[in-house]
Amino acid sequence: MKTPWKEDPRDTLLVGADFDLAQVDTGRMPGWRQDADPEAWLRETAGELADLQERLFANGQTSTGAHRSVLLVLQGMDTAGKGGIVRHVIGAVDPQGVHIHGFKTPTPEEQRHDFLWRVRRELPEVGLIGVFDRSHYEDVLIHRVRHLDTMDVIERRYGIITDFEEELVEQGMAVVKIMLHISRDEQRRRLLSRLDHPEKHWKFSPGDVTERALWPAYQEAYQIALTRTSTGHAPWYAVPADSKPHARAAVQQILIETLRDLDLQWPVADFDVAEERRRLAES
Amino acid sequence: MKTPWKEDPRDTLLVGADFDLAQVDTGRMPGWRQDADPEAWLRETAGELADLQERLFANGQTSTGAHRSVLLVLQGMDTAGKGGIVRHVIGAVDPQGVHIHGFKTPTPEEQRHDFLWRVRRELPEVGLIGVFDRSHYEDVLIHRVRHLDTMDVIERRYGIITDFEEELVEQGMAVVKIMLHISRDEQRRRLLSRLDHPEKHWKFSPGDVTERALWPAYQEAYQIALTRTSTGHAPWYAVPADSKPHARAAVQQILIETLRDLDLQWPVADFDVAEERRRLAES
Repeated sequence: MKTPWKEDPRDTLLVGADFDLAQVDTGRMPGWRQDADPEAWLRETAGELADLQERLFANGQTSTGAHRSVLLVLQGMDTAGKGGIVRHVIGAVDPQGVHIHGFKTPTPEEQRHDFLWRVRRELPEVGLIGVFDRSHYEDVLIHRVRHLDTMDVIERRYGIITDFEEELVEQGMAVVKIMLHISRDEQRRRLLSRLDHPEKHWKFSPGDVTERALWPAYQEAYQIALTRTSTGHAPWYAVPADSKPHARAAVQQILIETLRDLDLQWPVADFDVAEERRRLAES
Repeated sequence: MKTPWKEDPRDTLLVGADFDLAQVDTGRMPGWRQDADPEAWLRETAGELADLQERLFANGQTSTGAHRSVLLVLQGMDTAGKGGIVRHVIGAVDPQGVHIHGFKTPTPEEQRHDFLWRVRRELPEVGLIGVFDRSHYEDVLIHRVRHLDTMDVIERRYGIITDFEEELVEQGMAVVKIMLHISRDEQRRRLLSRLDHPEKHWKFSPGDVTERALWPAYQEAYQIALTRTSTGHAPWYAVPADSKPHARAAVQQILIETLRDLDLQWPVADFDVAEERRRLAES
Protein backbone atom coordinates (compact mmCIF):
# COMPACT_ATOMS: atom_id res chain seq x y z
CA MET A 1 0.00 0.00 0.00
CA LYS A 2 1.28 3.43 -0.98
CA THR A 3 1.60 5.91 1.87
CA PRO A 4 -1.61 7.90 2.27
CA TRP A 5 0.33 10.82 3.75
CA LYS A 6 1.02 13.57 1.24
CA GLU A 7 2.64 15.51 4.09
CA ASP A 8 4.18 14.40 7.37
CA PRO A 9 1.55 14.87 10.12
CA ARG A 10 4.36 16.02 12.38
CA ASP A 11 4.54 19.09 10.19
CA THR A 12 0.87 19.70 9.47
CA LEU A 13 -0.44 19.00 12.98
CA LEU A 14 2.34 20.65 14.97
CA VAL A 15 1.22 23.40 17.32
CA GLY A 16 3.37 26.38 16.40
CA ALA A 17 3.52 29.98 17.55
CA ASP A 18 0.57 31.11 15.39
CA PHE A 19 -1.63 28.12 16.21
CA ASP A 20 -5.35 28.81 16.55
CA LEU A 21 -7.43 25.90 17.86
CA ALA A 22 -10.67 27.55 16.72
CA GLN A 23 -9.42 27.45 13.12
CA VAL A 24 -8.74 23.71 13.09
CA ASP A 25 -11.27 21.71 11.07
CA THR A 26 -11.99 18.73 13.32
CA GLY A 27 -13.47 16.84 10.36
CA ARG A 28 -10.51 16.94 7.95
CA MET A 29 -7.06 15.36 8.26
CA PRO A 30 -4.43 17.56 6.61
CA GLY A 31 -2.09 15.78 4.22
CA TRP A 32 -4.21 12.62 4.02
CA ARG A 33 -5.08 11.24 0.57
CA GLN A 34 -8.88 11.27 0.56
CA ASP A 35 -9.29 7.87 -1.10
CA ALA A 36 -7.00 6.04 1.34
CA ASP A 37 -8.46 3.74 4.01
CA PRO A 38 -7.05 4.69 7.43
CA GLU A 39 -7.85 1.30 8.95
CA ALA A 40 -5.93 -0.50 6.22
CA TRP A 41 -2.98 1.81 6.84
CA LEU A 42 -3.15 1.18 10.58
CA ARG A 43 -2.89 -2.55 9.96
CA GLU A 44 -0.16 -2.08 7.36
CA THR A 45 2.10 -0.12 9.70
CA ALA A 46 1.32 -1.97 12.94
CA GLY A 47 4.21 -4.35 12.30
CA GLU A 48 6.72 -1.53 11.99
CA LEU A 49 5.45 0.06 15.19
CA ALA A 50 5.77 -3.27 17.02
CA ASP A 51 9.31 -3.74 15.65
CA LEU A 52 10.39 -0.26 16.70
CA GLN A 53 8.91 -0.80 20.16
CA GLU A 54 10.79 -4.08 20.53
CA ARG A 55 14.06 -2.34 19.67
CA LEU A 56 13.32 0.33 22.26
CA PHE A 57 12.62 -2.38 24.84
CA ALA A 58 15.69 -4.44 23.90
CA ASN A 59 17.93 -1.41 24.29
CA GLY A 60 16.51 -0.73 27.71
CA GLN A 61 17.20 -4.30 28.84
CA THR A 62 20.91 -4.44 28.08
CA SER A 63 23.99 -2.74 29.44
CA THR A 64 25.20 -2.11 25.88
CA GLY A 65 21.94 -0.58 24.66
CA ALA A 66 20.73 2.98 24.31
CA HIS A 67 18.62 3.79 27.34
CA ARG A 68 15.71 5.65 25.82
CA SER A 69 12.00 5.83 26.51
CA VAL A 70 8.93 7.46 25.00
CA LEU A 71 6.11 9.32 26.69
CA LEU A 72 2.84 9.77 24.82
CA VAL A 73 0.52 12.30 26.45
CA LEU A 74 -3.12 12.08 25.38
CA GLN A 75 -5.51 14.93 26.05
CA GLY A 76 -8.92 15.80 24.70
CA MET A 77 -12.51 16.46 25.71
CA ASP A 78 -14.64 13.55 26.92
CA THR A 79 -15.30 11.04 24.10
CA ALA A 80 -12.43 12.50 22.01
CA GLY A 81 -11.03 8.99 21.55
CA LYS A 82 -8.14 8.72 24.01
CA GLY A 83 -9.14 5.20 24.98
CA GLY A 84 -9.41 4.21 21.32
CA ILE A 85 -5.84 5.35 20.71
CA VAL A 86 -4.67 3.10 23.51
CA ARG A 87 -6.72 0.16 22.26
CA HIS A 88 -6.01 0.46 18.54
CA VAL A 89 -2.54 2.07 18.31
CA ILE A 90 -0.81 1.04 21.53
CA GLY A 91 -2.66 -2.28 21.29
CA ALA A 92 -0.43 -3.15 18.33
CA VAL A 93 2.71 -3.44 20.45
CA ASP A 94 3.83 -5.92 23.09
CA PRO A 95 1.91 -5.01 26.27
CA GLN A 96 5.05 -5.76 28.33
CA GLY A 97 6.72 -2.76 26.73
CA VAL A 98 4.02 -0.26 27.65
CA HIS A 99 3.15 1.56 30.84
CA ILE A 100 -0.32 3.09 30.66
CA HIS A 101 -1.75 5.35 33.30
CA GLY A 102 -5.05 7.18 33.41
CA PHE A 103 -5.06 10.29 35.58
CA LYS A 104 -8.35 10.82 37.36
CA THR A 105 -9.48 13.32 39.98
CA PRO A 106 -6.52 13.48 42.38
CA THR A 107 -6.87 11.36 45.51
CA PRO A 108 -6.59 13.04 48.92
CA GLU A 109 -2.99 11.78 49.11
CA GLU A 110 -2.15 13.18 45.66
CA GLN A 111 -3.70 16.51 46.58
CA ARG A 112 -1.27 16.85 49.46
CA HIS A 113 1.63 16.91 46.99
CA ASP A 114 2.87 19.12 44.19
CA PHE A 115 0.84 18.52 41.00
CA LEU A 116 3.76 16.75 39.29
CA TRP A 117 4.24 14.28 42.15
CA ARG A 118 1.76 11.72 40.86
CA VAL A 119 2.98 12.27 37.31
CA ARG A 120 6.62 11.51 38.09
CA ARG A 121 5.59 8.23 39.72
CA GLU A 122 4.04 7.03 36.48
CA LEU A 123 6.83 7.95 34.07
CA PRO A 124 7.98 5.08 31.84
CA GLU A 125 11.23 3.40 32.79
CA VAL A 126 13.96 3.02 30.16
CA GLY A 127 12.88 0.90 27.24
CA LEU A 128 9.18 1.52 27.73
CA ILE A 129 6.50 3.53 25.99
CA GLY A 130 4.55 5.41 28.62
CA VAL A 131 1.01 6.49 27.81
CA PHE A 132 -0.80 9.12 29.84
CA ASP A 133 -4.57 9.16 29.42
CA ARG A 134 -4.93 12.73 30.71
CA SER A 135 -1.92 14.11 32.51
CA HIS A 136 -0.38 17.08 34.31
CA TYR A 137 -2.18 19.21 31.74
CA GLU A 138 -5.41 18.71 33.68
CA ASP A 139 -3.86 21.11 36.19
CA VAL A 140 -4.02 23.91 33.62
CA LEU A 141 -7.22 22.75 31.89
CA ILE A 142 -10.02 21.76 34.28
CA HIS A 143 -8.19 23.67 37.01
CA ARG A 144 -8.35 26.84 34.90
CA VAL A 145 -11.92 26.30 33.75
CA ARG A 146 -13.24 25.38 37.18
CA HIS A 147 -11.07 27.86 39.11
CA LEU A 148 -9.63 25.06 41.22
CA ASP A 149 -6.53 27.16 41.89
CA THR A 150 -5.80 30.87 41.84
CA MET A 151 -4.90 32.29 38.44
CA ASP A 152 -1.47 33.09 39.81
CA VAL A 153 -0.80 29.43 40.62
CA ILE A 154 -2.09 28.30 37.24
CA GLU A 155 -0.07 30.90 35.33
CA ARG A 156 3.13 29.62 36.96
CA ARG A 157 2.39 26.04 35.97
CA TYR A 158 3.00 26.50 32.25
CA GLY A 159 6.65 27.26 32.92
CA ILE A 160 6.92 24.49 35.52
CA ILE A 161 5.57 22.05 32.94
CA THR A 162 7.97 23.06 30.15
CA ASP A 163 10.91 22.84 32.58
CA PHE A 164 9.74 19.43 33.74
CA GLU A 165 9.38 18.10 30.21
CA GLU A 166 12.77 19.50 29.23
CA GLU A 167 14.31 17.63 32.14
CA LEU A 168 12.73 14.39 30.89
CA VAL A 169 13.99 14.92 27.34
CA GLU A 170 17.49 15.68 28.56
CA GLN A 171 17.51 12.31 30.29
CA GLY A 172 16.65 10.41 27.12
CA MET A 173 12.86 10.44 27.02
CA ALA A 174 11.05 11.39 23.81
CA VAL A 175 7.94 13.35 24.77
CA VAL A 176 5.00 13.50 22.35
CA LYS A 177 1.83 15.32 23.24
CA ILE A 178 -1.43 14.72 21.40
CA MET A 179 -4.60 16.75 21.65
CA LEU A 180 -7.50 14.86 20.10
CA HIS A 181 -9.71 17.62 18.79
CA ILE A 182 -13.43 16.97 18.22
CA SER A 183 -16.29 19.35 17.52
CA ARG A 184 -18.98 20.06 20.03
CA ASP A 185 -21.57 18.43 17.75
CA GLU A 186 -19.47 15.30 17.41
CA GLN A 187 -19.26 15.05 21.20
CA ARG A 188 -23.05 15.21 21.43
CA ARG A 189 -23.36 12.40 18.90
CA ARG A 190 -20.87 10.24 20.81
CA LEU A 191 -22.48 10.85 24.20
CA LEU A 192 -25.88 10.12 22.68
CA SER A 193 -24.53 6.89 21.23
CA ARG A 194 -23.40 5.87 24.71
CA LEU A 195 -26.93 6.48 25.99
CA ASP A 196 -28.46 4.58 23.06
CA HIS A 197 -26.48 1.40 23.69
CA PRO A 198 -26.93 -0.30 27.07
CA GLU A 199 -23.51 -1.98 26.70
CA LYS A 200 -22.00 1.51 26.62
CA HIS A 201 -23.85 2.93 29.64
CA TRP A 202 -20.86 2.23 31.85
CA LYS A 203 -18.85 4.75 29.84
CA PHE A 204 -21.35 7.53 30.48
CA SER A 205 -21.45 9.84 33.44
CA PRO A 206 -23.94 12.67 34.00
CA GLY A 207 -20.91 14.79 34.80
CA ASP A 208 -19.92 14.58 31.12
CA VAL A 209 -22.96 16.67 30.19
CA THR A 210 -22.27 19.14 32.99
CA GLU A 211 -18.69 19.58 31.80
CA ARG A 212 -19.85 19.95 28.20
CA ALA A 213 -21.67 23.15 29.14
CA LEU A 214 -18.22 24.68 29.71
CA TRP A 215 -17.08 23.88 26.16
CA PRO A 216 -15.94 27.43 25.20
CA ALA A 217 -13.93 27.81 28.41
CA TYR A 218 -12.24 24.46 27.79
CA GLN A 219 -11.36 25.43 24.23
CA GLU A 220 -9.78 28.61 25.53
CA ALA A 221 -7.84 26.70 28.19
CA TYR A 222 -6.58 24.28 25.52
CA GLN A 223 -5.57 27.15 23.24
CA ILE A 224 -3.51 28.69 26.04
CA ALA A 225 -1.98 25.40 27.21
CA LEU A 226 -1.06 24.18 23.74
CA THR A 227 0.56 27.39 22.56
CA ARG A 228 2.48 27.99 25.78
CA THR A 229 3.82 24.46 26.19
CA SER A 230 4.45 23.26 22.64
CA THR A 231 8.24 23.37 22.60
CA GLY A 232 10.98 22.05 20.36
CA HIS A 233 11.77 19.30 22.84
CA ALA A 234 8.18 18.37 23.70
CA PRO A 235 5.83 19.40 20.89
CA TRP A 236 2.05 19.32 20.86
CA TYR A 237 0.13 17.94 17.91
CA ALA A 238 -3.52 18.93 17.47
CA VAL A 239 -5.17 15.96 15.78
CA PRO A 240 -8.57 16.38 14.08
CA ALA A 241 -10.54 13.57 15.66
CA ASP A 242 -14.13 13.60 14.42
CA SER A 243 -13.07 10.55 12.39
CA LYS A 244 -11.63 8.04 14.82
CA PRO A 245 -9.75 5.98 12.19
CA HIS A 246 -8.04 9.04 10.75
CA ALA A 247 -7.06 10.28 14.20
CA ARG A 248 -5.62 6.85 15.07
CA ALA A 249 -3.69 6.76 11.80
CA ALA A 250 -2.20 10.18 12.57
CA VAL A 251 -1.15 9.24 16.10
CA GLN A 252 0.33 5.95 14.91
CA GLN A 253 2.31 7.78 12.24
CA ILE A 254 3.60 10.37 14.72
CA LEU A 255 4.62 7.60 17.11
CA ILE A 256 6.40 5.66 14.37
CA GLU A 257 8.29 8.75 13.22
CA THR A 258 9.27 9.54 16.80
CA LEU A 259 10.64 6.03 17.30
CA ARG A 260 12.40 6.05 13.92
CA ASP A 261 14.17 9.26 14.96
CA LEU A 262 15.68 7.44 17.95
CA ASP A 263 17.58 5.36 15.35
CA LEU A 264 17.61 2.26 17.56
CA GLN A 265 19.83 -0.64 16.58
CA TRP A 266 19.68 -4.08 18.15
CA PRO A 267 22.04 -3.98 21.13
CA VAL A 268 25.26 -5.94 20.69
CA ALA A 269 25.92 -8.94 22.93
CA ASP A 270 27.73 -8.18 26.20
CA PHE A 271 28.91 -11.83 26.32
CA ASP A 272 31.06 -14.07 24.10
CA VAL A 273 28.64 -15.69 21.66
CA ALA A 274 30.96 -18.52 20.59
CA GLU A 275 31.76 -19.38 24.20
CA GLU A 276 28.07 -19.47 25.12
CA ARG A 277 27.31 -21.69 22.14
CA ARG A 278 29.97 -24.11 23.39
CA ARG A 279 28.66 -24.08 26.96
CA LEU A 280 25.13 -24.67 25.68
CA ALA A 281 26.15 -27.63 23.51
CA GLU A 282 27.63 -29.28 26.58
CA SER A 283 24.62 -28.66 28.79
CA MET B 1 -14.21 -22.76 12.41
CA LYS B 2 -15.19 -25.78 14.47
CA THR B 3 -13.67 -25.97 17.95
CA PRO B 4 -10.36 -27.84 17.85
CA TRP B 5 -10.80 -28.91 21.48
CA LYS B 6 -12.13 -32.44 21.85
CA GLU B 7 -11.79 -31.98 25.61
CA ASP B 8 -11.74 -28.87 27.80
CA PRO B 9 -8.07 -28.05 28.57
CA ARG B 10 -9.20 -27.10 32.07
CA ASP B 11 -9.87 -30.78 32.57
CA THR B 12 -6.96 -32.32 30.70
CA LEU B 13 -4.26 -29.90 31.92
CA LEU B 14 -5.40 -29.54 35.51
CA VAL B 15 -2.83 -30.47 38.13
CA GLY B 16 -4.60 -32.98 40.35
CA ALA B 17 -3.54 -35.09 43.31
CA ASP B 18 -1.87 -37.78 41.18
CA PHE B 19 -0.11 -35.35 38.86
CA ASP B 20 3.38 -36.34 37.72
CA LEU B 21 5.27 -33.65 35.82
CA ALA B 22 7.81 -36.16 34.51
CA GLN B 23 4.99 -38.03 32.74
CA VAL B 24 3.74 -34.99 30.81
CA ASP B 25 4.59 -35.10 27.10
CA THR B 26 5.77 -31.53 26.40
CA GLY B 27 5.27 -32.07 22.67
CA ARG B 28 1.59 -33.07 22.61
CA MET B 29 -1.49 -31.04 23.52
CA PRO B 30 -4.15 -33.30 25.05
CA GLY B 31 -7.62 -32.94 23.58
CA TRP B 32 -6.47 -30.95 20.54
CA ARG B 33 -7.64 -32.08 17.06
CA GLN B 34 -4.36 -32.77 15.28
CA ASP B 35 -5.40 -31.18 11.98
CA ALA B 36 -6.52 -27.89 13.56
CA ASP B 37 -4.38 -24.73 13.19
CA PRO B 38 -3.77 -23.20 16.63
CA GLU B 39 -2.95 -19.76 15.18
CA ALA B 40 -6.23 -19.67 13.29
CA TRP B 41 -8.07 -20.58 16.49
CA LEU B 42 -6.22 -17.89 18.43
CA ARG B 43 -7.40 -15.29 15.91
CA GLU B 44 -10.91 -16.73 15.86
CA THR B 45 -11.37 -16.48 19.62
CA ALA B 46 -9.47 -13.22 20.23
CA GLY B 47 -12.69 -11.24 19.78
CA GLU B 48 -14.50 -13.19 22.47
CA LEU B 49 -11.58 -12.74 24.87
CA ALA B 50 -11.57 -8.99 24.20
CA ASP B 51 -15.32 -8.82 24.74
CA LEU B 52 -15.15 -10.73 28.03
CA GLN B 53 -12.29 -8.50 29.20
CA GLU B 54 -14.31 -5.38 28.38
CA ARG B 55 -17.23 -6.69 30.44
CA LEU B 56 -14.87 -7.35 33.34
CA PHE B 57 -13.50 -3.82 33.04
CA ALA B 58 -16.96 -2.23 32.69
CA ASN B 59 -18.16 -3.98 35.82
CA GLY B 60 -15.16 -2.71 37.73
CA GLN B 61 -15.85 0.87 36.66
CA THR B 62 -19.41 1.17 37.88
CA SER B 63 -21.10 1.20 41.24
CA THR B 64 -23.75 -1.19 39.93
CA GLY B 65 -21.29 -3.70 38.47
CA ALA B 66 -19.80 -6.92 39.81
CA HIS B 67 -16.37 -6.10 41.21
CA ARG B 68 -14.28 -8.97 39.95
CA SER B 69 -10.73 -9.35 38.70
CA VAL B 70 -8.54 -12.08 37.24
CA LEU B 71 -4.97 -13.01 38.07
CA LEU B 72 -3.01 -15.06 35.57
CA VAL B 73 0.22 -16.46 37.01
CA LEU B 74 2.80 -17.57 34.44
CA GLN B 75 5.68 -19.82 35.42
CA GLY B 76 8.12 -21.93 33.44
CA MET B 77 11.80 -22.46 32.75
CA ASP B 78 13.70 -19.82 30.76
CA THR B 79 12.46 -19.67 27.14
CA ALA B 80 9.25 -21.56 28.06
CA GLY B 81 7.22 -18.83 26.34
CA LYS B 82 5.87 -16.65 29.13
CA GLY B 83 6.56 -13.49 27.16
CA GLY B 84 4.87 -14.94 24.10
CA ILE B 85 1.70 -15.57 26.11
CA VAL B 86 1.65 -11.92 27.12
CA ARG B 87 2.31 -10.73 23.56
CA HIS B 88 -0.06 -13.07 21.72
CA VAL B 89 -2.85 -13.86 24.20
CA ILE B 90 -2.97 -10.84 26.49
CA GLY B 91 -2.09 -8.69 23.46
CA ALA B 92 -5.58 -9.40 22.12
CA VAL B 93 -7.31 -7.35 24.81
CA ASP B 94 -7.42 -3.64 25.57
CA PRO B 95 -4.09 -2.78 27.23
CA GLN B 96 -5.92 -0.42 29.59
CA GLY B 97 -7.59 -3.43 31.16
CA VAL B 98 -4.41 -5.31 31.95
CA HIS B 99 -1.80 -4.99 34.68
CA ILE B 100 1.36 -6.89 33.81
CA HIS B 101 4.27 -7.34 36.16
CA GLY B 102 7.47 -9.29 35.73
CA PHE B 103 9.07 -10.42 38.98
CA LYS B 104 12.84 -10.35 38.83
CA THR B 105 15.52 -10.93 41.49
CA PRO B 106 14.16 -9.10 44.56
CA THR B 107 15.58 -5.64 45.12
CA PRO B 108 17.28 -4.88 48.46
CA GLU B 109 14.05 -3.15 49.56
CA GLU B 110 11.92 -6.15 48.58
CA GLN B 111 14.28 -8.48 50.42
CA ARG B 112 13.62 -6.60 53.62
CA HIS B 113 9.98 -7.62 53.49
CA ASP B 114 7.94 -10.81 53.60
CA PHE B 115 8.05 -12.60 50.21
CA LEU B 116 4.41 -11.72 49.47
CA TRP B 117 4.94 -7.99 50.05
CA ARG B 118 6.01 -7.18 46.51
CA VAL B 119 3.35 -9.53 45.14
CA ARG B 120 0.49 -7.83 46.96
CA ARG B 121 1.57 -4.48 45.56
CA GLU B 122 1.13 -5.74 42.00
CA LEU B 123 -2.27 -7.41 42.35
CA PRO B 124 -4.82 -6.28 39.75
CA GLU B 125 -7.46 -3.83 40.90
CA VAL B 126 -11.14 -4.65 40.33
CA GLY B 127 -12.00 -4.89 36.65
CA LEU B 128 -8.48 -5.75 35.54
CA ILE B 129 -6.67 -8.84 34.36
CA GLY B 130 -3.39 -9.07 36.23
CA VAL B 131 -0.56 -11.02 34.64
CA PHE B 132 2.43 -12.19 36.65
CA ASP B 133 5.49 -13.13 34.59
CA ARG B 134 7.03 -15.20 37.37
CA SER B 135 5.57 -14.69 40.81
CA HIS B 136 5.63 -15.66 44.48
CA TYR B 137 6.31 -19.19 43.24
CA GLU B 138 9.94 -18.21 42.63
CA ASP B 139 10.22 -18.32 46.43
CA VAL B 140 9.59 -22.07 46.37
CA LEU B 141 11.33 -22.76 43.03
CA ILE B 142 14.70 -21.05 42.62
CA HIS B 143 14.78 -20.59 46.40
CA ARG B 144 14.45 -24.34 46.87
CA VAL B 145 16.88 -25.25 44.08
CA ARG B 146 19.49 -22.71 45.11
CA HIS B 147 18.99 -23.13 48.87
CA LEU B 148 18.30 -19.40 49.23
CA ASP B 149 16.33 -20.12 52.42
CA THR B 150 16.31 -22.92 54.95
CA MET B 151 14.15 -25.90 54.05
CA ASP B 152 11.99 -25.12 57.06
CA VAL B 153 11.17 -21.65 55.70
CA ILE B 154 10.46 -23.00 52.24
CA GLU B 155 8.25 -25.82 53.54
CA ARG B 156 6.07 -23.29 55.36
CA ARG B 157 5.62 -21.20 52.22
CA TYR B 158 3.37 -23.68 50.41
CA GLY B 159 0.70 -23.23 53.06
CA ILE B 160 1.24 -19.48 53.19
CA ILE B 161 0.73 -19.35 49.44
CA THR B 162 -2.49 -21.37 49.40
CA ASP B 163 -3.89 -19.25 52.25
CA PHE B 164 -2.93 -16.07 50.38
CA GLU B 165 -4.55 -17.20 47.15
CA GLU B 166 -7.67 -18.30 48.99
CA GLU B 167 -7.92 -14.82 50.48
CA LEU B 168 -7.74 -13.32 46.98
CA VAL B 169 -10.43 -15.62 45.64
CA GLU B 170 -12.73 -14.90 48.57
CA GLN B 171 -12.50 -11.22 47.68
CA GLY B 172 -13.61 -11.75 44.08
CA MET B 173 -10.42 -12.51 42.20
CA ALA B 174 -10.24 -15.49 39.84
CA VAL B 175 -6.77 -17.00 40.13
CA VAL B 176 -5.41 -19.07 37.26
CA LYS B 177 -1.91 -20.52 37.38
CA ILE B 178 -0.11 -21.72 34.27
CA MET B 179 3.10 -23.71 34.13
CA LEU B 180 4.51 -23.66 30.61
CA HIS B 181 6.25 -26.99 30.36
CA ILE B 182 9.04 -27.49 27.81
CA SER B 183 11.58 -30.27 27.42
CA ARG B 184 15.25 -29.81 28.15
CA ASP B 185 16.08 -30.36 24.46
CA GLU B 186 13.57 -27.74 23.40
CA GLN B 187 15.16 -25.25 25.77
CA ARG B 188 18.57 -25.90 24.21
CA ARG B 189 17.11 -25.25 20.74
CA ARG B 190 15.52 -21.99 21.88
CA LEU B 191 18.64 -20.72 23.63
CA LEU B 192 20.71 -21.66 20.58
CA SER B 193 18.29 -19.76 18.37
CA ARG B 194 18.82 -16.68 20.54
CA LEU B 195 22.57 -17.01 20.01
CA ASP B 196 22.15 -17.55 16.28
CA HIS B 197 20.17 -14.33 15.74
CA PRO B 198 21.89 -11.04 16.68
CA GLU B 199 18.48 -9.37 17.07
CA LYS B 200 17.76 -11.90 19.84
CA HIS B 201 21.04 -11.51 21.73
CA TRP B 202 19.42 -9.12 24.18
CA LYS B 203 17.16 -11.95 25.36
CA PHE B 204 20.12 -14.16 26.21
CA SER B 205 22.05 -14.23 29.44
CA PRO B 206 24.97 -16.56 30.30
CA GLY B 207 23.10 -17.20 33.55
CA ASP B 208 20.43 -19.05 31.52
CA VAL B 209 22.97 -21.79 30.72
CA THR B 210 24.15 -21.92 34.32
CA GLU B 211 20.59 -22.35 35.56
CA ARG B 212 19.92 -25.00 32.91
CA ALA B 213 22.48 -27.28 34.56
CA LEU B 214 20.07 -27.52 37.49
CA TRP B 215 17.22 -28.81 35.30
CA PRO B 216 16.39 -31.95 37.34
CA ALA B 217 16.30 -29.98 40.60
CA TYR B 218 13.96 -27.43 39.01
CA GLN B 219 11.66 -30.16 37.72
CA GLU B 220 11.48 -31.59 41.23
CA ALA B 221 10.77 -28.16 42.71
CA TYR B 222 7.97 -27.64 40.16
CA GLN B 223 6.51 -31.07 40.90
CA ILE B 224 6.35 -30.24 44.60
CA ALA B 225 5.04 -26.70 44.12
CA LEU B 226 2.35 -27.66 41.61
CA THR B 227 0.97 -30.59 43.55
CA ARG B 228 0.97 -28.79 46.91
CA THR B 229 -0.60 -25.55 45.70
CA SER B 230 -3.07 -26.63 43.01
CA THR B 231 -6.32 -26.07 44.87
CA GLY B 232 -9.99 -25.90 43.98
CA HIS B 233 -9.94 -22.13 44.30
CA ALA B 234 -6.60 -21.52 42.56
CA PRO B 235 -5.76 -24.42 40.24
CA TRP B 236 -2.54 -25.04 38.36
CA TYR B 237 -2.56 -26.05 34.71
CA ALA B 238 0.55 -27.72 33.26
CA VAL B 239 0.60 -26.70 29.62
CA PRO B 240 2.79 -28.64 27.15
CA ALA B 241 4.75 -25.84 25.53
CA ASP B 242 7.25 -27.25 23.03
CA SER B 243 4.82 -25.89 20.42
CA LYS B 244 4.30 -22.20 21.16
CA PRO B 245 1.07 -21.83 19.14
CA HIS B 246 -0.56 -24.79 20.88
CA ALA B 247 0.48 -23.51 24.30
CA ARG B 248 -0.95 -20.07 23.50
CA ALA B 249 -4.19 -21.62 22.27
CA ALA B 250 -4.49 -23.55 25.53
CA VAL B 251 -3.86 -20.53 27.74
CA GLN B 252 -6.28 -18.41 25.72
CA GLN B 253 -8.95 -21.10 26.05
CA ILE B 254 -8.41 -21.41 29.82
CA LEU B 255 -8.61 -17.63 30.19
CA ILE B 256 -11.79 -17.45 28.12
CA GLU B 257 -13.44 -20.23 30.15
CA THR B 258 -12.41 -18.54 33.39
CA LEU B 259 -13.96 -15.25 32.27
CA ARG B 260 -17.10 -16.99 30.97
CA ASP B 261 -17.56 -18.55 34.40
CA LEU B 262 -17.73 -15.08 35.95
CA ASP B 263 -20.98 -14.66 33.97
CA LEU B 264 -20.48 -10.92 33.57
CA GLN B 265 -23.38 -8.82 32.28
CA TRP B 266 -23.08 -5.23 31.13
CA PRO B 267 -23.67 -3.12 34.24
CA VAL B 268 -26.98 -1.29 34.35
CA ALA B 269 -26.99 2.51 34.31
CA ASP B 270 -26.84 4.18 37.70
CA PHE B 271 -28.44 7.28 36.16
CA ASP B 272 -31.75 8.12 34.45
CA VAL B 273 -31.12 7.48 30.74
CA ALA B 274 -34.13 9.49 29.50
CA GLU B 275 -33.24 12.45 31.68
CA GLU B 276 -29.63 12.42 30.44
CA ARG B 277 -30.82 12.26 26.84
CA ARG B 278 -32.93 15.36 27.49
CA ARG B 279 -30.04 17.23 29.15
CA LEU B 280 -27.75 16.30 26.29
CA ALA B 281 -30.21 17.51 23.64
CA GLU B 282 -30.28 20.88 25.33
CA SER B 283 -26.51 21.19 25.63
